[in-house]
Amino acid sequence: MSATAVLLLSCPDQRGVVAAVADFIAQHGGNIVHAEQHTDDVEKVFFQRVEFELDGFGLGRDEILNAFSTVSSRFDMSVDLKFTDTLPRVGILASKQSHCLFDLLSRWRSGELPAHVAVVIDNHPDHADLVRHMGVPYVHLPVTPESKEAQERALLDELREQSVDLVVLARYMQILSPLVVNAYRSRIINIHHSFLPAFIGANPYRQAHDRGVKIIGATAHYVTEELDEGPILDQEVSRVSHRDSVADLTRKGRDLETIVLARAVRAHLEHRVLVYGRKTVVFG
Amino acid sequence: MSATAVLLLSCPDQRGVVAAVADFIAQHGGNIVHAEQHTDDVEKVFFQRVEFELDGFGLGRDEILNAFSTVSSRFDMSVDLKFTDTLPRVGILASKQSHCLFDLLSRWRSGELPAHVAVVIDNHPDHADLVRHMGVPYVHLPVTPESKEAQERALLDELREQSVDLVVLARYMQILSPLVVNAYRSRIINIHHSFLPAFIGANPYRQAHDRGVKIIGATAHYVTEELDEGPILDQEVSRVSHRDSVADLTRKGRDLETIVLARAVRAHLEHRVLVYGRKTVVFG
Amino acid sequence: MSATAVLLLSCPDQRGVVAAVADFIAQHGGNIVHAEQHTDDVEKVFFQRVEFELDGFGLGRDEILNAFSTVSSRFDMSVDLKFTDTLPRVGILASKQSHCLFDLLSRWRSGELPAHVAVVIDNHPDHADLVRHMGVPYVHLPVTPESKEAQERALLDELREQSVDLVVLARYMQILSPLVVNAYRSRIINIHHSFLPAFIGANPYRQAHDRGVKIIGATAHYVTEELDEGPILDQEVSRVSHRDSVADLTRKGRDLETIVLARAVRAHLEHRVLVYGRKTVVFG
Amino acid sequence: MSATAVLLLSCPDQRGVVAAVADFIAQHGGNIVHAEQHTDDVEKVFFQRVEFELDGFGLGRDEILNAFSTVSSRFDMSVDLKFTDTLPRVGILASKQSHCLFDLLSRWRSGELPAHVAVVIDNHPDHADLVRHMGVPYVHLPVTPESKEAQERALLDELREQSVDLVVLARYMQILSPLVVNAYRSRIINIHHSFLPAFIGANPYRQAHDRGVKIIGATAHYVTEELDEGPILDQEVSRVSHRDSVADLTRKGRDLETIVLARAVRAHLEHRVLVYGRKTVVFG
Repeated sequence: MSATAVLLLSCPDQRGVVAAVADFIAQHGGNIVHAEQHTDDVEKVFFQRVEFELDGFGLGRDEILNAFSTVSSRFDMSVDLKFTDTLPRVGILASKQSHCLFDLLSRWRSGELPAHVAVVIDNHPDHADLVRHMGVPYVHLPVTPESKEAQERALLDELREQSVDLVVLARYMQILSPLVVNAYRSRIINIHHSFLPAFIGANPYRQAHDRGVKIIGATAHYVTEELDEGPILDQEVSRVSHRDSVADLTRKGRDLETIVLARAVRAHLEHRVLVYGRKTVVFG
Repeated sequence: MSATAVLLLSCPDQRGVVAAVADFIAQHGGNIVHAEQHTDDVEKVFFQRVEFELDGFGLGRDEILNAFSTVSSRFDMSVDLKFTDTLPRVGILASKQSHCLFDLLSRWRSGELPAHVAVVIDNHPDHADLVRHMGVPYVHLPVTPESKEAQERALLDELREQSVDLVVLARYMQILSPLVVNAYRSRIINIHHSFLPAFIGANPYRQAHDRGVKIIGATAHYVTEELDEGPILDQEVSRVSHRDSVADLTRKGRDLETIVLARAVRAHLEHRVLVYGRKTVVFG
Repeated sequence: MSATAVLLLSCPDQRGVVAAVADFIAQHGGNIVHAEQHTDDVEKVFFQRVEFELDGFGLGRDEILNAFSTVSSRFDMSVDLKFTDTLPRVGILASKQSHCLFDLLSRWRSGELPAHVAVVIDNHPDHADLVRHMGVPYVHLPVTPESKEAQERALLDELREQSVDLVVLARYMQILSPLVVNAYRSRIINIHHSFLPAFIGANPYRQAHDRGVKIIGATAHYVTEELDEGPILDQEVSRVSHRDSVADLTRKGRDLETIVLARAVRAHLEHRVLVYGRKTVVFG
Repeated sequence: MSATAVLLLSCPDQRGVVAAVADFIAQHGGNIVHAEQHTDDVEKVFFQRVEFELDGFGLGRDEILNAFSTVSSRFDMSVDLKFTDTLPRVGILASKQSHCLFDLLSRWRSGELPAHVAVVIDNHPDHADLVRHMGVPYVHLPVTPESKEAQERALLDELREQSVDLVVLARYMQILSPLVVNAYRSRIINIHHSFLPAFIGANPYRQAHDRGVKIIGATAHYVTEELDEGPILDQEVSRVSHRDSVADLTRKGRDLETIVLARAVRAHLEHRVLVYGRKTVVFG
């Protein structure tokens, strides 16, 4: 498929928005290959994702936003413009557990993720070998309660040096300080190993076992200052029973974590996500 | 919510369709409350469902199609126009088993189905009492191999007399002749108690048990001349194990059947379904 | 199938329990048709459900427990003995919403629930007609904050008069006082319309909508003094999206509620549930 | 956990089997840690899996079967005895696609699979590097229609040399001849990328797309002479829509394939599977 442009729009709900956007693209000879919209009837906000072919489009890439401003200012729109042949640069943060890290790298290698994995930053040294084997820059940044502040500065330096667009916490197991969270607002995806908002915080599988639930879950969400309270991107669940020990829940949960994190990362990388308040619109 | 109009469109994929449709509605002062589109990249066909408010729209209901013909003829469109305050009239065909019949009637009574249940036609007499208790006209039309032709003529008469728009086979257990199928093309929904195309024909739960599957399913589809080969509207599945007898599969399957049939009927009644070839587009 | 006896056993985990139980049944000429066991490796508790044919068994029904006491006292067992041809008497408590009530009655009528529905007690008058039509005694017991104490006494009187073994809260929407809870410990099943422990208390679908979850759930649990904290019997979930309003969640949730409540009630009625602490063992 | 022995038993259904097996273990001072049984009421066959601690058991490992023969001959039992500290040796056969291969190796490395991966045999050369990096012997055995017979002989030699107990076809994409199938009856697990028995044979995702199904699946089964007709171990499904191209189905299906294959392999390796006729009993 040839390169396309993606417009991610939101504005107060009002008449004529869809027509104005479609007109703009049609007037410049564009061909819409995918369009999806959503109106939040409570908040009265309109959201739209429009993807159109760049081939044959009458405007250069850096002219589009300027030309579109007649539309966006008329409707008081927030606009984000992406090009699908510009691969976002991803930084993966990992710790001892490897399943999410390796799963993301495998998917990336097989071409499933439209991204460039720019760097893996790891606070445990175990995965250096395999990450490098897969051709990805690897940085080991161990962390202790004392070194945490310095480690985060080094981490931020590394992310900036690698021009990272999206940070993925692949079971990173560290709470990021507001310094990092603010630098990558709506651009840090975490996987929490529970069905949020159930079992916030530490040891969710043990909490689930103690409560005797019959289904466990995993949740991918954007990181905000409040622990496990950020906008949810995706969730997945699996049936369990009284037979399952904490170790069984942990094992079964790993499959949920890898799948739901990969789906959420993919949605972000394909520019299908809009964040508003503590919620997301994830287009299909 | 006030009344809305729904345009269901399909045409050869081409530039400018979205803009032309949106323009038409905007020019007449319409407010789009929901729009969804799909392009089949293989067949090069464009599909769209556009729902807009009638309140404040500049055209009368019977003027819309005529005015829209400038757009539809330009793009060689098939057009279907529906009004959401005009409830489709549904005829339910039932046999001995009651779960799908009662489930549909319960949903209808609770206001979940935007329809008017015009008649229940039953080839077993068992449900007369409860159907009538729920305030629905009940017709008992028993069928034998010898009487089948006459029974179908009576059935067609009844459907026509009640001005039925949609026929729902709620485990009707009779194969309809082409006479009926042609009279209600893409307007007869059947529930088959298997995960089609697995286990076509009779006794699918026994077939599933004999094959030793670990998941069973149910499929709602439009009825065509070929048995269980019509366009699929929806499917649902449930995990089973070696412990499940044919009776267990039948019991577990009943829940699948009621849910998937209700979902499919609801999608049709909300004008969210477009049929092409042996497939469906079911908008969300 | 001929009548069977069910032994529900729990005791400290120790060697020889399985053999002792199986020996007891074999010595009296019994044929085990189903046996399932579970050991909680953390609490070191052993649980077993053994079902054996009464036909040909060498002991009369009222001799079994006494004869079994040699085994049960040796292993310090809790023992419960049930006969599958003695149908438990069920009292259903309902309020305005009808879906769980009608679903249970439909399943009961179709023979899916091994129970006798002894009474429906309703604090809204709407369902009297249909309940009576289905041949079930109906009692209307309206409740206000002022009348609650008196209403509960009347409710208890009714349950006792009908010799109710199991109380099912089919979206009853009232918090039962300790008086009722203690009278029917581990014998009151409630359906909560969330994936517990998420969204305890009122308006869980609104809470779920506000949090922006991507999956909703329903939970069947035994009622204890603490609201929504009792032992969980079963849970079920359904995928939702940003498109779903609170009304959509409510509608989708209804299907979860009916299915998970019916499954939980069925497990209880088939004597497949053992409660310990705040957990359940639900055998397959 | 200390080492345990697993007895996998099947025999004509008859009274006293459970007691006889439990007695045998109790008499030798064994402690049963898990027992599960199943009776096929149609075929009148009894199946049981009993796992007991070897620590403190009064018989040596090579004395058990002999001593048990008094029980097994009395009930005409088929008996299989396994020790959980004897890791089965697994040979993985792979082709171009890597997802199932890498997933199995990742799980094995993380300790999730109780096995020794003895060899990876690959008919494409692409994965040599990573397999060796993970410390597994790698054999490249390319195959053409002309070389197939010779390749299979080399393959069998390799499997025998490595004393392989279980062969896993990780999207191997070749139909094995009866020579191989017979040598490893009920010991070759294949993953078929459809919900069998739907879409047998080549290109199941294309078949699924053409049929317009709303759910796709994957099936793990033992390989027999008849293509995709062997006993099913496990299945998994995923919802799809009209939006999904064949490429989308293929991508979504990969996650199903890896998960269902891993689950089936794990069940086999934990000695939880009994095969009879074209069915399996998979204990929990």
